[in-house]
Parts: sequence; structure tokens; C-alpha cells
Amino acid sequence: MRILITGAAGFLGSHLCDRLLGEGHEVVGMDNFVTGRRENLVHLVKNKNFSFHRHDVTETITIPGKLDAVLHFASPASPNPASPFGYPNLPVETLAAGSLGTFNTLNLARVKDARYLFASTSEVYGDPLEHPQKETYWGHVDPVGLRSMYDEAKRFSEALIMAYYRSKKTDTRIVRIFNTFGPRMRADDGRVVPSFIQQALRDEPLTIFGDGHQTRSFCFVDDLVDGIYRLLLSDEHLPVNIGNPMEISILDFAEMINQFTGNTAGVDFLPDKRYDNDPQRRCPDISRARSLLGWEPKVDLSEGLKRTIEFYKAG
Amino acid sequence: MRILITGAAGFLGSHLCDRLLGEGHEVVGMDNFVTGRRENLVHLVKNKNFSFHRHDVTETITIPGKLDAVLHFASPASPNPASPFGYPNLPVETLAAGSLGTFNTLNLARVKDARYLFASTSEVYGDPLEHPQKETYWGHVDPVGLRSMYDEAKRFSEALIMAYYRSKKTDTRIVRIFNTFGPRMRADDGRVVPSFIQQALRDEPLTIFGDGHQTRSFCFVDDLVDGIYRLLLSDEHLPVNIGNPMEISILDFAEMINQFTGNTAGVDFLPDKRYDNDPQRRCPDISRARSLLGWEPKVDLSEGLKRTIEFYKAG
Repeated sequence: MRILITGAAGFLGSHLCDRLLGEGHEVVGMDNFVTGRRENLVHLVKNKNFSFHRHDVTETITIPGKLDAVLHFASPASPNPASPFGYPNLPVETLAAGSLGTFNTLNLARVKDARYLFASTSEVYGDPLEHPQKETYWGHVDPVGLRSMYDEAKRFSEALIMAYYRSKKTDTRIVRIFNTFGPRMRADDGRVVPSFIQQALRDEPLTIFGDGHQTRSFCFVDDLVDGIYRLLLSDEHLPVNIGNPMEISILDFAEMINQFTGNTAGVDFLPDKRYDNDPQRRCPDISRARSLLGWEPKVDLSEGLKRTIEFYKAG
Repeated sequence: MRILITGAAGFLGSHLCDRLLGEGHEVVGMDNFVTGRRENLVHLVKNKNFSFHRHDVTETITIPGKLDAVLHFASPASPNPASPFGYPNLPVETLAAGSLGTFNTLNLARVKDARYLFASTSEVYGDPLEHPQKETYWGHVDPVGLRSMYDEAKRFSEALIMAYYRSKKTDTRIVRIFNTFGPRMRADDGRVVPSFIQQALRDEPLTIFGDGHQTRSFCFVDDLVDGIYRLLLSDEHLPVNIGNPMEISILDFAEMINQFTGNTAGVDFLPDKRYDNDPQRRCPDISRARSLLGWEPKVDLSEGLKRTIEFYKAG
């Protein structure tokens, strides 16, 4: 297949490029480098099956030649208001990527008669009142809240994609991505995994906001990409959760990182500076991924963490 | 003020034109006539303070001269899947009006340094789990459901407007409009008020789906327009509900219409053909409108109904 990936220079986008190239596909990458980074793609520059277009998906997209699939992964993705790359600091850009960008990529898929896959998110569930989250849960999102630029853009995109699927027969797929970690996460966008690892590698105490009992479920990026690839090859049009249902407290997680890095500085507890509506708990129900795609996570947290730590050590 | 109204040829848009012209403002109307109708504006053609641009708000908008306010009312608005004018039959158009149209109107307001007001809806609350609905309720909407094209477009627009307000200091307002009725509702878009009145005027039994105990709260259009005008003149940037909190069952409502029209054919009960996620009950909490705008509905249901019946008799 010849496959376009928007957001190709991002954390997930770049790993998707690697996997699809590894499967023998031709990949056309696209990014505007607002949050993506050149170094995530530099190892692909000499790959004859890889080409790259610097382009903003909120502008009409023209790609010469055939395309068999369009994967729309372009969006700021960090909720951290303290980072310049967090979507709270890129509100209009985030809303544009998840509306104009979704229109443009859907229209491209129609013109090329290509299948379409959209990177949605567990954020469509907002601050959920049901645990774990099934795909049939409608979510709990404040449309005018301080992180609505991301959540509502993704919800809008899902509605738009279903409209194209239902009324124009576009061959669409929607993956709802839960917390993911691995090499190439921006060290400077304030998400917990790179932040902890960087602190540990500097022999500093890991900063925990609150008492550390809030839980997260983390999926290693290779597992996530495998689920996305299976969805791309499937005929499933309704949203599918992909994520790791194993919950771990932030405190246990910090202690694992200290153990694997040999950091003896421990942890520091700071007052909870919970971002607006930052969920205290989120965990995927992956029954649909299991039954429809035969998918479940394979890499355990220790193994994934060790591989991620190696990446940051080498950087 | 010189005020642009998109969706000016629609039910609400045309009444807004009348009110604003009556207040001495200059009005620029805009519509693409997908669901709006020329006859709603024909009485304004000779008004020297009224001008009209036939234009689709999903395309960039250029208006010569100054503008003091931009009111974005353009969108299909009937949930009826049996009508060609219902948004279930215009899904992509509805999502485009509530995203591209919102971007374009917001950008116009910025260029003109104009205040901005957006016609949002009680549909942002979806099929609500709280009654009555306060503006702080986050809603209950299925992002991939069969009416998500409308609900998610309006939620997206609210998020976008708050992003412009917060990050670009655009002078925005959001009104959440509950069920409204009055002259000029399309007789053919399947909404209950014109459908009942048309049946009554033909001496036919009024068709009730289900047992008639589902409730609605109906606001007469003059009251609604008054609330919108007060919001436009206010400095309130968070959403404000405008609607009539008096609930009435569909059965009682049908009986009122039969009484006022002298229709003796009664009612017909048909099996509930509830549209996907059609709420059984929705009712505004108007505390914010009362305290911030000094607004509450003045026209009682009997009076509003009589005036609406006169309109359809004359047509």
C-alpha cells in the first residue's frame, strides 16, 4: 500500500512510519513541525520507500499519485499548560487540526479512493464517570472547559468521520488511543513518562503532584502501533479503544523508574496542580480490540520502561 | 450598530433581522438557502437599513465596510430524519456550518473588531441526565450517534469560540437556544409545532408518537429574540440558556392547538418513532439569563400559539 501519515514527525506518527515501512509499504509523511520534530524522521531520510511533505493539514492537501490509505495523526497532544507544546497553549491550532485537518484528509481519501484512519483519543471520554471505558460510553466533557480545544476537536472529528462513512461511504476507521509511552516522546512537553525519566537520569527526586495514588494505564508504543495496524487492515468502522488496561499508581510507576535507572533520590510530593478537568483515572475496556482485531498488549511495563530509558540515556 | 446575521433567511435569523432593524440598527443578512427561505426576508427588501448577501458561510466571508457585530445563526436545525431539511440528511453541511462557518465568522469578527454572538443549542446537553439543565452541565452526547452531526458541531463551535475569547480576546457570546416556536417555522421540516398546526388547520387528527406524556418546553420566538438581543448588549462570555422553563406534555400541547383552531378531529397515537437519542425531556434553567440579562419569557404559550396559528392560516 502507499500510505499518507499526517503528524508523521510526532511520537506516534514516526513509530507508525517505521512499522508500515517494515511491513513493506510505501509511506508519505506529512508534518508542519508545530509539535513534531525532524529528528524523529531523520533515520528514514535515505529509505527509498519514504517521502516527506512539509505541509499544514489545515490547508488543502494535494499528493501526486495514488494513495491506498490516509492516516490522520496530526495534532498537538500534550495537555500540559506549562509546556509551549501543550494544546492549552495551541488552542486554535488544535481545534483547526481536528476540524479543517479532518475535512482535508477525508476529502483527500475520497479523491484517492483510499481507506482512512483517524487518531482519536481516550480524551473523548473526558473525565469519565464509568470505569473502565467501553466504546459505547458517551463521555463527560465540558465543551467550554480549559481543555475542550482537544477533547471537542477529537469528538467533532469522530462525528465528521461517521458522517462521511454513513453518507459518502468513505472507508473510515477510528482508533481511540489511551496513554502511550516509549522512545521519541518530547522530553519538553510535560508528560509524565519523559519527565520522570529525565529527572531520574539527572539523579533528581521525581516530582509527583498530589499523593501519587491517582492511576494511569500506559501502553508501550510498539503495542499501540500494532493495534492501529490491525485496525487499518480490518473492516471496523466504529471506534475501537487501543490501550493497556493495566492500571498503575503514579507512585508505583515513579518507583519503577527509580529502580530501573538506579536513581536513589526518591520522589518529591508537591500539591496537586491538576489541570482543568484532568482525569484522576482512565482505563480502556479492550474487549472490542480483542474480539475484532485479535489484539492485546504484549510488552509489559517493565520491559517498555527499560527500552524507553535506553532511548533517553542515548539522547 | 451594523450587524451581520448568518442564517438570516431562517426562522430565528429572520426574526432577529426584524428586531434589530426595529431597534434602529443596520442589518446585513447572509444565507445560502439550503434550509433558509427567501419568503422570510421578502418584507425587508425595501428597507434601506437591510442588505443581503447570498453566500455559504463555509467559504471565506468578505463584507465591505465596518461591522459592529457578527451573529452566526447559519445551520440546519431540524432533527427530523424524514425531512430533506433535517440535519440527519445534511450531515456534512451541518458539521461544516458549525466548524468552517464558525472559523470564518470568528475571523471576520476579528478583522472588523466586531463583537460576536453564536447560536448554540440545548442539543449540547444531548439526552440530559440532569433536569433542568444548567449551563454548567457538561451534557450527554454520543459523538458517533445518528444526531452527532448537529450536537458535536455546536459543541465544537463553543470550544472554538472560547479559544478565540481566551487566546485572541475576541469579544464573544454564546446563547444556548431551547425549543422555540412561532411564525415562519418551515411547515415541511417535521418539527412538532408546525406539523400539529397544519394538521389542525386541515381538520385532521394530530399525530402523536408514543403516549404523549413526553414533555417539551416551548419559547415563543419574540421572547427568544429579546433574550438574544440582551445577551448581545451584555458582556457575558460564558454560555447563557435562553428558553421557556414551563414544561408541557405533547398531549396537552396537541389539545391546546385543537382548541385554538376549533379542530374536532382529536389526536392519533402512533408507535414511538423516537429519533436516535431524541431526548424525552429537556428544560432550561434560566437563572443566569434572569440575573445577568434581566430576561425571562413574557409571552404565554396560549398567546404564542394563537399568533403562530394566525400565521399558518394566512399562509
